[in-house]
Amino acid sequence: MSFSDTVNSPQQNFAPLKNDRLLRALRFEPVDTTPVWMMRQAGRYLPEYKATRAEAGDFMSLCRDTARATEVTLQPLRRFDLDASILFSDILTIPDAMGLGLYFEAGEGPKFKYPIRNQADLDRIPTLDVNDSLDYVMRAVTSIRTEINGAVPLFGFSGSPWTLATYMIEGGGSKDYRYTKGMLYGNPQFLHQLLDKLAIAVIDYLDAQVIAGAQALQIFDSWGGALGHRQFIEFSHAYNKRIVAELKVRHPTIPVILFTKGGGLWLDIQADSEADALGLDWTMPIDRARQVLRASERQLSEHYQQPQRRKAVQGNLDPATLYGSPETIRKEVKAMLDSAYACGEKTGYVANLGHGITQWADPERAKVFIDAVHEYQL
Amino acid sequence: MSFSDTVNSPQQNFAPLKNDRLLRALRFEPVDTTPVWMMRQAGRYLPEYKATRAEAGDFMSLCRDTARATEVTLQPLRRFDLDASILFSDILTIPDAMGLGLYFEAGEGPKFKYPIRNQADLDRIPTLDVNDSLDYVMRAVTSIRTEINGAVPLFGFSGSPWTLATYMIEGGGSKDYRYTKGMLYGNPQFLHQLLDKLAIAVIDYLDAQVIAGAQALQIFDSWGGALGHRQFIEFSHAYNKRIVAELKVRHPTIPVILFTKGGGLWLDIQADSEADALGLDWTMPIDRARQVLRASERQLSEHYQQPQRRKAVQGNLDPATLYGSPETIRKEVKAMLDSAYACGEKTGYVANLGHGITQWADPERAKVFIDAVHEYQL
Repeated sequence: MSFSDTVNSPQQNFAPLKNDRLLRALRFEPVDTTPVWMMRQAGRYLPEYKATRAEAGDFMSLCRDTARATEVTLQPLRRFDLDASILFSDILTIPDAMGLGLYFEAGEGPKFKYPIRNQADLDRIPTLDVNDSLDYVMRAVTSIRTEINGAVPLFGFSGSPWTLATYMIEGGGSKDYRYTKGMLYGNPQFLHQLLDKLAIAVIDYLDAQVIAGAQALQIFDSWGGALGHRQFIEFSHAYNKRIVAELKVRHPTIPVILFTKGGGLWLDIQADSEADALGLDWTMPIDRARQVLRASERQLSEHYQQPQRRKAVQGNLDPATLYGSPETIRKEVKAMLDSAYACGEKTGYVANLGHGITQWADPERAKVFIDAVHEYQL
Repeated sequence: MSFSDTVNSPQQNFAPLKNDRLLRALRFEPVDTTPVWMMRQAGRYLPEYKATRAEAGDFMSLCRDTARATEVTLQPLRRFDLDASILFSDILTIPDAMGLGLYFEAGEGPKFKYPIRNQADLDRIPTLDVNDSLDYVMRAVTSIRTEINGAVPLFGFSGSPWTLATYMIEGGGSKDYRYTKGMLYGNPQFLHQLLDKLAIAVIDYLDAQVIAGAQALQIFDSWGGALGHRQFIEFSHAYNKRIVAELKVRHPTIPVILFTKGGGLWLDIQADSEADALGLDWTMPIDRARQVLRASERQLSEHYQQPQRRKAVQGNLDPATLYGSPETIRKEVKAMLDSAYACGEKTGYVANLGHGITQWADPERAKVFIDAVHEYQL
């Protein structure tokens, strides 16, 4: 029995949302204070996470275990005054469901037993029924949404097609993307076939997460920044744009955040999408990002002869800032928020780290970060 | 006996330069065609390099062996129509001379036996007499310059203080710069002490390379892009700016190229230095880089109330392009040069890759790249 057989439009049965600060900021509505959450907020820096993970066994067993995936998602909400939660899962669930044999080697990150290197590999990739092969994700979403009980909104998420493709072709993480870029320059049509399959899967995956209860979505293009400028447009952004457009048809009110790590140079490109917000890493000053986006929106409105959706921004404290003293963290948070609101508009911004919180961060310092964001007077 | 005792101002005895295309482009003088060279052009993609390296033993033995370091520097010049040569050496010679115990583990990159983690480690760092502890580098420079016999100019180079510091603190390469950023946010004065020592060493090192025969200099800030915007200014650029300024006092006619990988967002910051050119990786379109630089130069000229040095640009083909077909390489080179000259000014540009050529590149494809640059009609 698949997920869709058991749950019919669960959205209607969940508790009403109490804290809508994040959703308001994404819609450029007034907020009382800045909404904040942390990428990878359920993670190894928390002792309670490590305890639950040890009970579950390996990482993917934790993802597949509805009760424990719910538990680790809720853990940071008990410690910190967060304005959003995010599904505990991995970006590689889609390739795993496609049969690539995901496994984790100690200290080495994720690996695939069967990387995609030739047409036969590509042809073996099945069209996913996400409610069947990824039903454990949807069960986790519904369980988490139920347990949160309306306290804060729940993000669903997916890796971008380009980012998923790099793992699938390299067979794991990579420093130079030798095989993926070998295809990009040597056999671009092959890469496009793979990206097309992934785009379809990502649309269905995020759509199903929303039906299961996700109230906002984030697409992680973790390795988009490895591409050249024109290649980013062709091999990454074009697919993200298509995914967001389709999600907006299916779920017009669900906000979508697009986060390209290392994509600060290309905000003008990313502006050409229906995303509600763009994520920034710490290399891009937020005031400059907001200027670039406003200028790009004006140009795009002229180009398309219709007003474009204004994009909020999310980010962008260097996660390493949390290695500093409380005073340093507060100083850096103030600088970040001064930059975010330099334009005079006291909304359209979500505070976050510029990448996932690291396993070495002290939870007490994470609390300093979150509280400093909320204490900042708008 | 140190190098400076044996060679007194060798610059005067070298053969006159026959191909000054690169130097002319850096000075914004007319050129007959675009000058081109490749970062890491003496390297593992060349079978003749691998043969010479096998004779020398390990990597540092090759760097210390004047005859063989000269031989591998000249090898790419025999194969390709290059417009510059670059000293064969490693960016980690300075930390090695400082006693950190450089070694190379198979497949793991460079490591240091004695990383810098506390004040005692820092206090143990000696003030270098570069003509003593790095005399092998100066001997190689003079030998190479003599052997090239004026065919093309010879680059000397160094890592930037920030980039060297990351290796010295982490004890090798890093993905997240945990310890270095821990100091940056937790004990910035400690990091500044180290960077200050490194800046002094880099100045002396590059000065000595010029005296030994280098005709141009490049500073590699390979990991500058890992910093936040304000942190890049304080912990990387400030030191690079100081180094270039001092070199310009000592050697006003020697051009200096500053290459910050991942620094495309910060060209306006890098413009505030006396560098003759900025290196670009493939994420930054060259036409946009030139626009940013012209605007920054105008602003800086107003700020300092005196005209600023115009900056040429160098780069920026993705090294992975060489995995593509000859047609793809030619198409990408054309797009790069169209972008480089979009402003209408047919000089002030040096073609290069956006990072070092990889060990998996086919030398025949490198030849296609170099010839395509020269065949492009200005």
